[in-house]
Amino acid sequence: MQLDWLLAPPLPAGVPRQHLLYQRLRAAVLGGRLAPGTRLPASRSLAAGLGIARNTVLFAYEQLAAEGCLVADRHGTRVAALAPAPPPAAVTALPGLSARAATALQPEPGRDSDSLPFAPGVPALDAFPFRSWRASLERAWRAAGWRQLGYSPHGGEPALRAALAEHLSTVRGFAVQPAQVVITGGTQAGLDLCARLLADAGDFAWVENPGYPAARTALGLAGLRLHAVAVDAEGLAPTAADWAVQPPRLVLVTPSHQYPSGAVMSLARRLELIGGARAAGAWIVEDDYDSEFRRGGPALPALYGLCADAPVVYAGTFSKTLYPGLRLGYLVLPAAVAQTFMRAAGQATRPGQGVEQTALADFIRRGHYTAHLRRMRRRYEARQAALRAALARQPGPELAVTGGGAGLHLVLWLPPALPDVEVARRAAALGLGPRPLSRYTLPPLACNGLVLGYGNLDEARADEAVARLRRAMTAPA
Amino acid sequence: MQLDWLLAPPLPAGVPRQHLLYQRLRAAVLGGRLAPGTRLPASRSLAAGLGIARNTVLFAYEQLAAEGCLVADRHGTRVAALAPAPPPAAVTALPGLSARAATALQPEPGRDSDSLPFAPGVPALDAFPFRSWRASLERAWRAAGWRQLGYSPHGGEPALRAALAEHLSTVRGFAVQPAQVVITGGTQAGLDLCARLLADAGDFAWVENPGYPAARTALGLAGLRLHAVAVDAEGLAPTAADWAVQPPRLVLVTPSHQYPSGAVMSLARRLELIGGARAAGAWIVEDDYDSEFRRGGPALPALYGLCADAPVVYAGTFSKTLYPGLRLGYLVLPAAVAQTFMRAAGQATRPGQGVEQTALADFIRRGHYTAHLRRMRRRYEARQAALRAALARQPGPELAVTGGGAGLHLVLWLPPALPDVEVARRAAALGLGPRPLSRYTLPPLACNGLVLGYGNLDEARADEAVARLRRAMTAPA
Repeated sequence: MQLDWLLAPPLPAGVPRQHLLYQRLRAAVLGGRLAPGTRLPASRSLAAGLGIARNTVLFAYEQLAAEGCLVADRHGTRVAALAPAPPPAAVTALPGLSARAATALQPEPGRDSDSLPFAPGVPALDAFPFRSWRASLERAWRAAGWRQLGYSPHGGEPALRAALAEHLSTVRGFAVQPAQVVITGGTQAGLDLCARLLADAGDFAWVENPGYPAARTALGLAGLRLHAVAVDAEGLAPTAADWAVQPPRLVLVTPSHQYPSGAVMSLARRLELIGGARAAGAWIVEDDYDSEFRRGGPALPALYGLCADAPVVYAGTFSKTLYPGLRLGYLVLPAAVAQTFMRAAGQATRPGQGVEQTALADFIRRGHYTAHLRRMRRRYEARQAALRAALARQPGPELAVTGGGAGLHLVLWLPPALPDVEVARRAAALGLGPRPLSRYTLPPLACNGLVLGYGNLDEARADEAVARLRRAMTAPA
Repeated sequence: MQLDWLLAPPLPAGVPRQHLLYQRLRAAVLGGRLAPGTRLPASRSLAAGLGIARNTVLFAYEQLAAEGCLVADRHGTRVAALAPAPPPAAVTALPGLSARAATALQPEPGRDSDSLPFAPGVPALDAFPFRSWRASLERAWRAAGWRQLGYSPHGGEPALRAALAEHLSTVRGFAVQPAQVVITGGTQAGLDLCARLLADAGDFAWVENPGYPAARTALGLAGLRLHAVAVDAEGLAPTAADWAVQPPRLVLVTPSHQYPSGAVMSLARRLELIGGARAAGAWIVEDDYDSEFRRGGPALPALYGLCADAPVVYAGTFSKTLYPGLRLGYLVLPAAVAQTFMRAAGQATRPGQGVEQTALADFIRRGHYTAHLRRMRRRYEARQAALRAALARQPGPELAVTGGGAGLHLVLWLPPALPDVEVARRAAALGLGPRPLSRYTLPPLACNGLVLGYGNLDEARADEAVARLRRAMTAPA
């Protein structure tokens, strides 16, 4: 039997002889070049024929016998009878992604745009308190024994839940116990949990229109049917038809600072929404993503806690107040369901990051978190002012600017002659990261504008960045 | 108008007067004690009546006007006309969890059991290389600029994906490019991603029977219909009826070391499974959760990469090789879908933990990871031997022990007179964490035994722990 080809060139560099022999023998068996039942030469004679050590052959034979490719018996070694692998011609296309993935995904630019001026939702990472955060991490690691390396208890690390409950009662006036706080892997993970634990596939989920695209992705991937509800100056404005025809199981809202329009939900609307949700047997998920950076007076009270036992889950995040890569957020639940939800969330996600959670609790307890929020509030105020001034100062047609009552972004409205997707594409080519407002809308709503993040926009660079943005509006397509 | 009650005792400690006034006024408006349209006294006269500073009243009035509870006009201040909150009697029960949550959740003990002897799936955290891991973390934080604080690129940090691709090609023989590796938040997160991105609600997902309960939770919460397929000594053993009646969209398998039975899937079965999946248009997800700790010779090749372009996604984790709380794992995808899947995964989860990922890449590149795996392989071999010896030595009826070809657990079979749930309950009362085998099965399969983890079982404590386990088997119910 001629087996020279087993070690014929090309011999890939860095692959030991014995591994190469194993690989090629295996491919020959699986590919059908060596037919089932074929007897192979004795190890000694194959070794002699190939000019290699007998052990090299023995290794390959034994390994392939262990895998089931070869069979060793008292007569020697033969090729096993295997279900033949399909011939290469039959290698058809792989199955694709699921229908829900194809539907839910956004035509989103790469995350690379996050570092560009005007990218929305990016905090002032250049002002991140590396020193105090690393000190908290260092303390947590020094104190960590092996227990901190395991999964976290359902709901998260008790120290962090306690620190958060206290923080929320101070800044948000919540009467909340640590047992009502569930630590999540960030807002997206929290929404995903709510979608799967509180609603079933096929249920209607109401989303704001315009609204946060990533939230639509989370709800859509959980198999929910999205229903877009219009937003006006008082926030979510559902009609009687909305309630009757697409009764929600889950309503996702941003009442403190509607994303991206900036509307604050009026008290009347809040009470109506709670009443409607109660009647429909629906859960409200309140995404309070940036109320920490409210300007002009204290924050409005959250929807959560407005009425006793309202069906509201409050979602908060550290992505904007600290940094997105931390991947920690939290949900606050009504007391009556907190225990059940927490257990379910623990099984759904197997929580961890115990050392980081402990560090964050330390960071909050020592007052670094509140101090950082205070500094950032001032900084974002200055950055928004610089952006508004630059927009007013830089030559070009006057465009309406709305929003900015909280958070890290403004909305710049564009005339129909300047389609936002096209302007954003040109802006990207100029190194800017604004997002087209039309990406935030679902039919029948049509908006044309840019969501301009200023979290990462250095005041000193505002004029230059706006000048570039103006170029993106005038440059030829 | 008599408003003394606004500051009547009890006055909660630590709440400033002006906040208390605001809270009580608000509750009176929302609760209906102050009817819509009611005129409130001028701030000066209310302050005099309550014996407080006028500014205190002004603060409360202004805050409540901003919220929409009060209306200020040229005649003074009156209570706004709001949709009345439902009377307390109408406060009905909150909506519950979703049907899928109710179905998918396991009657699992709390995570507290993880630290107990015999808890399955817990690595030897007492042998964790704190020093070298912290050094890698420290280097990553020192090198971190603000860019590392943002979301990670889709698919994860390039350095970690490259380090993993290299590691997998060395230990698993994969010919895999970094672009085919997607970093996840651990195995549970990876399965959840596969379930949502590769299958739709209502699709059949095949799970092994017996099999990993947490995997069933992930697939069930994604809305998939679970179909339990029997496992024998050669691994998953689907019948023609399985393929015909419940054609899968997703097949979850643990071919290297079936969990919990320990069976290794034969090569013939692997080829049959790939052929069947191809014909059904199904994805196979290969959960290779502990093949790093295989005993007795090199690991069998993975299902992934066995045939060109097989519809296989490979799932790996650092939970068992490093520590569960790290919350990092990975998926390896066929080249043809890697790019699409990576984009979708990035939108579904918004990846982060960039600094930790960079630290892990450093840890792998410096050889610490391979060295740790080598040490742990020896340690688990010693721990398993100590457990087997203790089981043989400690008095009591002889019970069959299976598994242990890899990983961190053995299966101890119990006679029908000792129902496993009951034994596990008694063992928990004695400070032990074995899991009843029946928790891993779905009907019609019925097994009675204990899954005994030995990852966290100090050799010196094996005899004492087994003696306690024997007590749990003999103690009165």
